[in-house]
Amino acid sequence: DGGSYDVINDASSPAAGDCCAQQSSARHNWEMNYQEAAIYLQEGENNDKFFTHPKNAKALAAYLFAHNHLFYLMELSTALLLLLLSLCEAPAVPMLRLGIFVHATLELFALIVVVFELSMKMRWLGFQTFIRHKRTMVKTCVLFVQFIEAIVVLVRQTSHVRITRALRCIFLVDCRYCGAVRRNLRQIFQSLPPFIDILLLLLFFMVIFAILGFYLFSPNHSDPYFNTLENSLVNLFVLLTTSNFPDVMMPSYARNPWSCVFFIVYLSIELYFIMNLLLAVVFDTFNDIEKRKFKSLLLHKRTAIQHAYRLLITKQRPSGISFKHFEGLLRFYKPRMCARERYLTFKALNQSNTPLVSLKDFYNFYEVVGLKWKAKRNREHWFDDLPRTAFLIFKGINILVKSRVFQYTMYTVVAVNGIWILVETFMLQGGNFFSRNVPWSYIVFLTIYGVELLLKTTGLGPVEYLSSGWNLFDFSVTLFAFLGLMALAFNMEPFYFIVVLRPLQLLRLFKLKKRYRNVLDTMFELFPRMASLGLTLLIFYYCFAIVGMEFFAGVVYPNCCNTSTVADSYRWVNHTVGNKTVVEEGYYYLNNFDNILNSFVTLFELTVVNDWYIIMEGVTSQTSHWSRLYFMIFYIVTMVVMTIIVAFILDAFVFRMNYTRKNQDSEEDNGIVLEKEISKEEVVGIIELYKRTSAATETAQLQKIVLQMDKYGQMSTLFLGRRSRTKSDLSMKMYEEEIQEWYEEHSRKEESQTPLQEPASASSGSLKPLSLRQRSQTVI
Amino acid sequence: DGGSYDVINDASSPAAGDCCAQQSSARHNWEMNYQEAAIYLQEGENNDKFFTHPKNAKALAAYLFAHNHLFYLMELSTALLLLLLSLCEAPAVPMLRLGIFVHATLELFALIVVVFELSMKMRWLGFQTFIRHKRTMVKTCVLFVQFIEAIVVLVRQTSHVRITRALRCIFLVDCRYCGAVRRNLRQIFQSLPPFIDILLLLLFFMVIFAILGFYLFSPNHSDPYFNTLENSLVNLFVLLTTSNFPDVMMPSYARNPWSCVFFIVYLSIELYFIMNLLLAVVFDTFNDIEKRKFKSLLLHKRTAIQHAYRLLITKQRPSGISFKHFEGLLRFYKPRMCARERYLTFKALNQSNTPLVSLKDFYNFYEVVGLKWKAKRNREHWFDDLPRTAFLIFKGINILVKSRVFQYTMYTVVAVNGIWILVETFMLQGGNFFSRNVPWSYIVFLTIYGVELLLKTTGLGPVEYLSSGWNLFDFSVTLFAFLGLMALAFNMEPFYFIVVLRPLQLLRLFKLKKRYRNVLDTMFELFPRMASLGLTLLIFYYCFAIVGMEFFAGVVYPNCCNTSTVADSYRWVNHTVGNKTVVEEGYYYLNNFDNILNSFVTLFELTVVNDWYIIMEGVTSQTSHWSRLYFMIFYIVTMVVMTIIVAFILDAFVFRMNYTRKNQDSEEDNGIVLEKEISKEEVVGIIELYKRTSAATETAQLQKIVLQMDKYGQMSTLFLGRRSRTKSDLSMKMYEEEIQEWYEEHSRKEESQTPLQEPASASSGSLKPLSLRQRSQTVI
Repeated sequence: DGGSYDVINDASSPAAGDCCAQQSSARHNWEMNYQEAAIYLQEGENNDKFFTHPKNAKALAAYLFAHNHLFYLMELSTALLLLLLSLCEAPAVPMLRLGIFVHATLELFALIVVVFELSMKMRWLGFQTFIRHKRTMVKTCVLFVQFIEAIVVLVRQTSHVRITRALRCIFLVDCRYCGAVRRNLRQIFQSLPPFIDILLLLLFFMVIFAILGFYLFSPNHSDPYFNTLENSLVNLFVLLTTSNFPDVMMPSYARNPWSCVFFIVYLSIELYFIMNLLLAVVFDTFNDIEKRKFKSLLLHKRTAIQHAYRLLITKQRPSGISFKHFEGLLRFYKPRMCARERYLTFKALNQSNTPLVSLKDFYNFYEVVGLKWKAKRNREHWFDDLPRTAFLIFKGINILVKSRVFQYTMYTVVAVNGIWILVETFMLQGGNFFSRNVPWSYIVFLTIYGVELLLKTTGLGPVEYLSSGWNLFDFSVTLFAFLGLMALAFNMEPFYFIVVLRPLQLLRLFKLKKRYRNVLDTMFELFPRMASLGLTLLIFYYCFAIVGMEFFAGVVYPNCCNTSTVADSYRWVNHTVGNKTVVEEGYYYLNNFDNILNSFVTLFELTVVNDWYIIMEGVTSQTSHWSRLYFMIFYIVTMVVMTIIVAFILDAFVFRMNYTRKNQDSEEDNGIVLEKEISKEEVVGIIELYKRTSAATETAQLQKIVLQMDKYGQMSTLFLGRRSRTKSDLSMKMYEEEIQEWYEEHSRKEESQTPLQEPASASSGSLKPLSLRQRSQTVI
Repeated sequence: DGGSYDVINDASSPAAGDCCAQQSSARHNWEMNYQEAAIYLQEGENNDKFFTHPKNAKALAAYLFAHNHLFYLMELSTALLLLLLSLCEAPAVPMLRLGIFVHATLELFALIVVVFELSMKMRWLGFQTFIRHKRTMVKTCVLFVQFIEAIVVLVRQTSHVRITRALRCIFLVDCRYCGAVRRNLRQIFQSLPPFIDILLLLLFFMVIFAILGFYLFSPNHSDPYFNTLENSLVNLFVLLTTSNFPDVMMPSYARNPWSCVFFIVYLSIELYFIMNLLLAVVFDTFNDIEKRKFKSLLLHKRTAIQHAYRLLITKQRPSGISFKHFEGLLRFYKPRMCARERYLTFKALNQSNTPLVSLKDFYNFYEVVGLKWKAKRNREHWFDDLPRTAFLIFKGINILVKSRVFQYTMYTVVAVNGIWILVETFMLQGGNFFSRNVPWSYIVFLTIYGVELLLKTTGLGPVEYLSSGWNLFDFSVTLFAFLGLMALAFNMEPFYFIVVLRPLQLLRLFKLKKRYRNVLDTMFELFPRMASLGLTLLIFYYCFAIVGMEFFAGVVYPNCCNTSTVADSYRWVNHTVGNKTVVEEGYYYLNNFDNILNSFVTLFELTVVNDWYIIMEGVTSQTSHWSRLYFMIFYIVTMVVMTIIVAFILDAFVFRMNYTRKNQDSEEDNGIVLEKEISKEEVVGIIELYKRTSAATETAQLQKIVLQMDKYGQMSTLFLGRRSRTKSDLSMKMYEEEIQEWYEEHSRKEESQTPLQEPASASSGSLKPLSLRQRSQTVI
């Protein structure tokens, strides 16, 4: 495949030019090429579009400045600072209230940092690309508005209605670290069209039933739910969430039992049919999008690899990349990789017997570069080198710890402990259980767990012990339990919550069954995506919280809504019966928008949906009936996000199950493992190479390997490369056949757009990034 | 393929024996074979296991007696009678109360009919098979218990606690017409193991959180939700359904705002993660089961066809079935099929040019036999034969009606009508709208719809007009609107509900977008399965209603629960404020188990879940706290059924979408269509055949075709066979490749079990059903 790049020219200079105008020497030229190739590979990995590729030396400097963790952290912290400001701005959390001058200055400072970030981006992208990049443009506009508002606040020394604060989350979304959130948001927006279609169907039936309900039930004057068309609509909307269910039916049901048919039909159509259809449509779209996303990312990575490859081949040897150049690339792509790993990665890529990595081999770059390499140990246990007696003792412990009997004994202990806790708790009848002495059962069980921990650590060695997630879990729970014991013994009240974590130990019982292991594994795999979905939800919460605070802060308080239908829930009466004071509390006044934390809790309650109409009606009775729009829109938005979450869990789980069914033979699923052997001569060869480039640390490191080999008298060492399996790996295997088709289709499309066979003169003379000119259009 | 059956013997006698011992003549023998083959094919279609195949003449007679619609109807009506008896037994619906003597006698009568049915089944199956058939055995046991109980009731003249009445639904489930319900139940039971696993995980976390909650919140004496471990457990169970959500948090939240973390974590884990995991697991299992079910049914049908084929080939011509024998089979298999259709079916099956249908062709039997045949019309419109002027007029109307302008005008009218209704309804402010005059807008719109209906009927012809589901819908809605107008005009109060059906007309607007058409089509396709799932749910309802009535009838009434925490909801106070009587009603006493209809409504409310704990607590406060078990178990059961329903809708929808994506080219999806041409000679040939068997009606019918051909001077007529596409057709196409593998695997398994090459002597001499002996084990 690499043969198509046959651009053979003068000695030792790269086949393709670098992105910078200077090229004082071939050496410098190569360094530039390495860097650009590394940038291409990073762009491929992060799914950055190639049109944002730096175009000249100034742009490259800005690119490098803006692409490191320090800069990312600055981005993130300014975004977080801006978001957290809403804790201190009026209406503030009481303990965190700041003066207007203080928080407005802080805001201005953060905004100036954002301006700096954006200017760096502009330098890197160039003005043309900058204004073409939508997200950045939106960010700039929001920044402008925020700036003006912050200045206005500073000048007037008072906060006006600032619902634009809701837009602050765009600074967070734009952070490099929030790529997952951006992807989620994109997915949500892509799922919207079918969602809205079904939503319209849902609302259509709602309107029809509202009209029907109004005609049927408004003659009944004791029915407050259908007396006007507006009420009818609102109540059927709430009924969609089942939140007012038997109540909304009761007045008419009391009058005529057959009126329940209306509600049963409504709920069956809306709740049990259309709502599920909504899920089905979203799930279907989600599935489709996931696959398309995977495809586009795969092809994007492939193009990135092609770009990088072109920059790394020499004009003399256009059929592949030599280790020297590969090493140069890795120095920029993964600076923290050590020399040994670089060589192993090169070896792992190189499928042929030649010293060059061809384009075909290079396509596996992303799969191989993530491997963590370790010399394969000759000794089985950590205690193999110990004297005979010690060895036998530890070997005995090792066998004991690995035996089924030991395992099941521990399960039994855990189960007994569980029942014990349950019974013990059941015996207690409220109050003051922490001031007593430490119960002996607690000490007994903790001792057993401690002994188990000790045995396992010694038997398996601490490294192997802690490499299992379950052991880590055991360890931390036992540690917590120990801390709890301390807290109990020394009567430290604030730590008593640790004691109640004891039952978590019981989770170990779920190791016993295969399905649970499967489910829990899926759970852990899903965790990062779930977290990013949670964060996405929080961003929506933030927007709604700001809007809610601006409009509804302070509108609900005890006994605020005595004229509304939900008066009871907001009541706070303190009356004396006989000589006892009875407090009648509705508590709902606590669900308010008085500060951002309260707003978040209130919004969570709205998300859970149950009794949300009480909150809505409370606020509505204190403001106008347009407030309902806020609550209804929030319901629909959370419905979208929640449906996406459900679709995501469904998809991930079903995908994994299908995968397991398809690969039942290759059961042992402990990640991707690759084995590579390195001979002494090879190492010596690389040392020579590094000596020439005078990289002292690398040379020393490699020398150590040679010494090690000499010590054990080996001629070669076996290394194991290991990484955990990602969704992408699974997808690769699932769509195996289709992927080949995609590749073919992709390369056909490319060929038809730009002939790969560039004239030799162009590539040797031109300094502009050749690859850029060629491909930037083909990638989405 | 058929070549393997090479059992060539004497003239004109069937290759395989029939199931009856007599064989007076070859003719009789053939009739018997036809019948048995038809039975095999029916068994294949209904997925009846072959071990229930009738084994001798007596069994055959019983089989025939028990397999016709009269018998099925009897089965169904006795089952329904038994179920409906619970309307009249104490606690009865007031209007339907019957004396104990009356309903017990009715019950005895129905049970005797069931005894009769079972005895017929025993005759058909034989005692051995009868006691091996699980469902029948369970039915027999239930019958026995019911019988004894009915007699006891008659003797004691009083009803005892008869929760065994809940088992009556088994009589309904066992009905031939309730096959879909049985399949659903089987599917539910098959999905149970993974469901229960995840449920245990759910409950486990619930227990852990209950213990935590008890430790954390019981020191707060104003918190009634966590004061004991039992309360803590119950309230967290209810929280799982979100039914008590903000309330359960409020007392602790009021004391310490951070306690909301406990609830947020609990809900996030339980509700948003594990509950969705539950759906995912069920969906995955459902998917898998659907595919396996399809596979087993497909192979079962194949085996049935093999059995039938063996009975229909002659010893002289073992390579296929002649029309004569095929016709004989169809006479038994589909008695109401006319001669023309029988021949067309034969022709459609026969892919080769020989006059015989080979086994390979015969495998398509089930796909072809359902086709409805019609002569392809030469004329395009119904008015083609009319005189010139009339033709032109109708042609004009036809073009008008089919034009886009007409369609969109009608959509506009519908939309305007919709907005009109909305505005009109909005203007009304409650009460007495039906005693007024008929509004003119109503008449105008109805006239427009009427004219449209008229134009369409005349332009398209009534047959074509009504063949579209949408037109049928339009027609019926317009008819209802007209009836509503009549009701309005003549002031017939009871019919006013028809008026409110007008907005349904608006549904037509959804024809406009492709996704809606897709969704609505899927909806109609799903309808039968949805109905059967609904029926399944009703059967569960019935069981729970009976149990509920036996234990909780009459326990709740106004002001019953003044000592409980839900007293307000059951309150009924009639106090005078000033000179006005104010009724304070909680209404929840209406949600009782006082008769079966009330129980059903109450159970529906429990299914919807919102505020179900009020019903639970009300009943619990009047009985014992063990009553909660009833409600919790009901919740879990409905959760299972509902999850299955969701999984089903998801599966059906995703399947259909995948299908559409896979077959985007063959867009026009109007069922399965087959074309066959028949020449005059062929028809004459068949007439000869029928004349020999002296079937007068068939001959006359065929003669008519010949006359028709003569009239138009044709030598042949083209016939179109049409049927709607079923899920099975779609699955056939989706799993195309896998099906071939299944077939091969199946035939390999068969060959290894029983060599197809039977010794000729065995098949010619033996009278026992050869196929039975061979295959009954291979089919599930």
